[in-house]
Amino acid sequence: MRLSRFPITTSKDIPADAEIPSHQWMLRSGMIRRIAAGVYTWSPLGLKVLRHVERIVREEMEAAGALEVLMPMVQPAELWQESGRWDQMGPELLRLQDRHHRDFCLGPTHEEVVTEFMRRELKSYRQLPLNLFQIQTKFRDETRPRFGVMRAREFLMKDAYSFHRAPECLRDTYAIMRTAYTHILRRIGVDYRVVAADSGNIGGSASEEFHVLADTGEDLLAISDSGDFAANVEAAPCTAPLPARPEPGAAMEAVSTPDQRSLDEVGAFLKVPLARCLKTLVLRTEHDEAVLVVLRGDHQLNLIKVSRYLGDNCALATEARVQQVCGTTPGFVGPVGIDGVRILVDRDASVMADFVCGANAEGRHLLHVNWDRDLPLGEVADLRNIEAGELAPDGGRIELKRGIEVGHIFELGQKYSQSMHLSVPDEQGQPLVPFMGCYGVGVSRIVGAVIEQCHDEFGIRWPQSIAPFQVLIVALNPKKDPEVEQAIEDLYQGLIAAGVDVALDDRDLRPGHRFADADLIGIPHRIVAGARGFATQTLEYKRRGADSAEDIVWSVASVQEKLY
Amino acid sequence: MRLSRFPITTSKDIPADAEIPSHQWMLRSGMIRRIAAGVYTWSPLGLKVLRHVERIVREEMEAAGALEVLMPMVQPAELWQESGRWDQMGPELLRLQDRHHRDFCLGPTHEEVVTEFMRRELKSYRQLPLNLFQIQTKFRDETRPRFGVMRAREFLMKDAYSFHRAPECLRDTYAIMRTAYTHILRRIGVDYRVVAADSGNIGGSASEEFHVLADTGEDLLAISDSGDFAANVEAAPCTAPLPARPEPGAAMEAVSTPDQRSLDEVGAFLKVPLARCLKTLVLRTEHDEAVLVVLRGDHQLNLIKVSRYLGDNCALATEARVQQVCGTTPGFVGPVGIDGVRILVDRDASVMADFVCGANAEGRHLLHVNWDRDLPLGEVADLRNIEAGELAPDGGRIELKRGIEVGHIFELGQKYSQSMHLSVPDEQGQPLVPFMGCYGVGVSRIVGAVIEQCHDEFGIRWPQSIAPFQVLIVALNPKKDPEVEQAIEDLYQGLIAAGVDVALDDRDLRPGHRFADADLIGIPHRIVAGARGFATQTLEYKRRGADSAEDIVWSVASVQEKLY
Repeated sequence: MRLSRFPITTSKDIPADAEIPSHQWMLRSGMIRRIAAGVYTWSPLGLKVLRHVERIVREEMEAAGALEVLMPMVQPAELWQESGRWDQMGPELLRLQDRHHRDFCLGPTHEEVVTEFMRRELKSYRQLPLNLFQIQTKFRDETRPRFGVMRAREFLMKDAYSFHRAPECLRDTYAIMRTAYTHILRRIGVDYRVVAADSGNIGGSASEEFHVLADTGEDLLAISDSGDFAANVEAAPCTAPLPARPEPGAAMEAVSTPDQRSLDEVGAFLKVPLARCLKTLVLRTEHDEAVLVVLRGDHQLNLIKVSRYLGDNCALATEARVQQVCGTTPGFVGPVGIDGVRILVDRDASVMADFVCGANAEGRHLLHVNWDRDLPLGEVADLRNIEAGELAPDGGRIELKRGIEVGHIFELGQKYSQSMHLSVPDEQGQPLVPFMGCYGVGVSRIVGAVIEQCHDEFGIRWPQSIAPFQVLIVALNPKKDPEVEQAIEDLYQGLIAAGVDVALDDRDLRPGHRFADADLIGIPHRIVAGARGFATQTLEYKRRGADSAEDIVWSVASVQEKLY
Repeated sequence: MRLSRFPITTSKDIPADAEIPSHQWMLRSGMIRRIAAGVYTWSPLGLKVLRHVERIVREEMEAAGALEVLMPMVQPAELWQESGRWDQMGPELLRLQDRHHRDFCLGPTHEEVVTEFMRRELKSYRQLPLNLFQIQTKFRDETRPRFGVMRAREFLMKDAYSFHRAPECLRDTYAIMRTAYTHILRRIGVDYRVVAADSGNIGGSASEEFHVLADTGEDLLAISDSGDFAANVEAAPCTAPLPARPEPGAAMEAVSTPDQRSLDEVGAFLKVPLARCLKTLVLRTEHDEAVLVVLRGDHQLNLIKVSRYLGDNCALATEARVQQVCGTTPGFVGPVGIDGVRILVDRDASVMADFVCGANAEGRHLLHVNWDRDLPLGEVADLRNIEAGELAPDGGRIELKRGIEVGHIFELGQKYSQSMHLSVPDEQGQPLVPFMGCYGVGVSRIVGAVIEQCHDEFGIRWPQSIAPFQVLIVALNPKKDPEVEQAIEDLYQGLIAAGVDVALDDRDLRPGHRFADADLIGIPHRIVAGARGFATQTLEYKRRGADSAEDIVWSVASVQEKLY
């Protein structure tokens, strides 16, 4: 591709609304242009990268035995009502009406549609197992779309759905898909981790996420240094053995803590370490029940674990609700003397003794509080985030890393096949309700995630696998010597003929501008071909990110050598 | 692909709601499954065909120098308000609101979005010309979606938009795209015609359509037997020289035609040929103006021509409106004595003399009516459909054929660049408003159109270019002889290794069922490989649609020979 005929409009300015590097670099390199919040046009440059990711994903899905289908973006409400998600999903499910006032939504995912497809298609158990995938545009009406393609509203996703006679078969396909996902990320060439995950509102049991590691990742991952255990902090169980609870010491007493509203302030004021202060939080479930959760003062609440434990989604209660339940403001709440409200105690908090907690009275805390003696021990469960340095379930030590979720696989079980009445006659003619798996890859998100991991202060550093071009030739021939011009043209055509995806920067711009663009758009291999080098039959070669350039022989073969 | 692992669910029943062959065959072969009116899931079998069409279209677009982009399906109202089409478009533009109650639509086409993209992207006249294409899902909320993928609401389209400094450059690209479109249809291998077209609500000047010929086509095409002229009847001008108008004969007189409501009945009753009866129609423009149009009785109104002539979209007026304008019911209207309403006279009607027309009184017609003598001649224009046998503008004779529009190319001019303020500094730094072209291919529609042209009573007859598989091996080995089994497997693997897209029908079904499926899904080349043939080292080969099968040598090479 000659860049004089390829629209590249780069910018030196960091766009005001772009908070993270991938968003900034994608806008500055002109890969995407915003049309509305979370809605983008992919330019020729950006689309080349997206199509590379798409191709790798498609090839690995086909290698895994999945068959490609194409399901619609506009989906009738009836299907979502059948599965129950029409009401369960919040406003991120974009609902609309057609000209006849019938309800539809834009598909954020396709469990309903694929189950509907299968219940018409499936005539015999012999057709199972079956694994269908698509690479298709989806829409989620995020409250606050941000981070460019990382949290866009309209995005490209690969989703796959498998159907099985029995759970064992589902597990086999799940394992095949897991391997296919690792192949995808390995072929792209990024540092990634597979972690155990919470399955969220998709439903089902086993579930793992695939994360590209990056400091800007929204997710925190707990990874054992032994290498066997890895989980999203959301889903990482705290399983380290607990010490025995010490015997109670001094009697409980109330003290005045008039200006100490945070637990840090209370601990400092009372000269008690945070690990001996109790953190008390009032939550509200989706069914509007209030629940008290207590943790060790130095631990962090894990809302997902609490929601899972209760079987009901929770959020922090409003201050008014706190007042109603505990009779005081959030800074002074505690579990002592609370009646008629479930009290959930994190495992680590359950072995605390002689601790400090709020007195449920403005400006007062309690000292030397002990379970059983001063208050009944509530329901004990694992309710907190695991932390760096803790013992992992596999015996190693936990390290925390940040990741960007680019894939998620689920053993769904029969959730959708049951609610949507998908069944097929088995060998005995009895109805068999298939077991399902579902498997997603954020195709457009991968593009952003790779940039988060692969960039420097000058721009993107594409892995060769998905770079918009493998090689960029910057042509320098100020005197327009026809012999040099022809030699550059021969080199360019020679590389094309050798199957190399090469761009020729023949734009009428300053060399400095073109070198800066080369770094910004992140082509892995840069060649400078000019009059000076032609005299000595040398090309200047520089790998993107290398400290310095080197001279190589002016030939197609010597450029090709650099690509492997 | 082994069909035992590939979901093929065929049906012998003609689906009740499928009116045309392509819709019937696509449902019966299981290529598509309906999810809602005009919304389909493409099965693995169907998608293979769609992807072949997509690939051919993409390759030809790239060969034509167009660059691929990807624009969003969900588009903000503001862009459509800028171009004026938010109000112009009817309910086929599906409007919706996001969670913040902002207005959006589902893109039925992308002129607005691409113009917005370009006005941000384009920094210099040197970036022109530029031709951008995408292959993307679109949505049009048809009143009555029908004919399967031929008039679906959600569909796959290739749309391209070119930008130019000057009209001459636009014309060059238009010509290149025209050639690319003919390459697409030739490579697919269908009988097609390029015809002059009306440019409809897209706007602009020159415009041509690409039609796949089929008896079920919705469009009527006027094609000169000389081969130079071809136009959609909607847009085909009637240019044959007119005879001189005869002198008036007898005086005008009113006659009673009490029960003659149609022109046919009136002509028969009065013993006057239709060519001497005047057809009078009352139309209503979008601006609610009434207009009288008169034609020769044996000619057909062309609403597109009338709308173009008036610069305003027209439709037939309601009976109440007819009553208001002419004081009678539609059967008895005529142009005599009508005041305050524009009267448009078709060219051929303008040379009639001594004609019959309605008297604007219930049960009465006028005889011996003559222009100028009995009423002023209104505005004369070409307002009717051209007919078979007429003189074509190129001197040949018109033949009428039915076609399915699968492509449409337009010289848009500056319609969108002006209304949306796209401009770029020219050589002198003065604002240059680019000239635009736009070019559409109905990718999913092509699949249906090809079936309309290529089918018989047994099913689809795919051209090899886009067939879901090139070769189908039906394996017959009732005694499961392992030697035969291995030989069939070797043949299958040998064809795969030779790059042939081959399916092996290894399903545990009766041979008759499998042969019927082979015809229904329309694989071009069918091989029967079985125990009997193995004994003599012969395969049975049959080309889809051939009268009989033939024996060929059991080898990969002899199968391959049949493919070219």
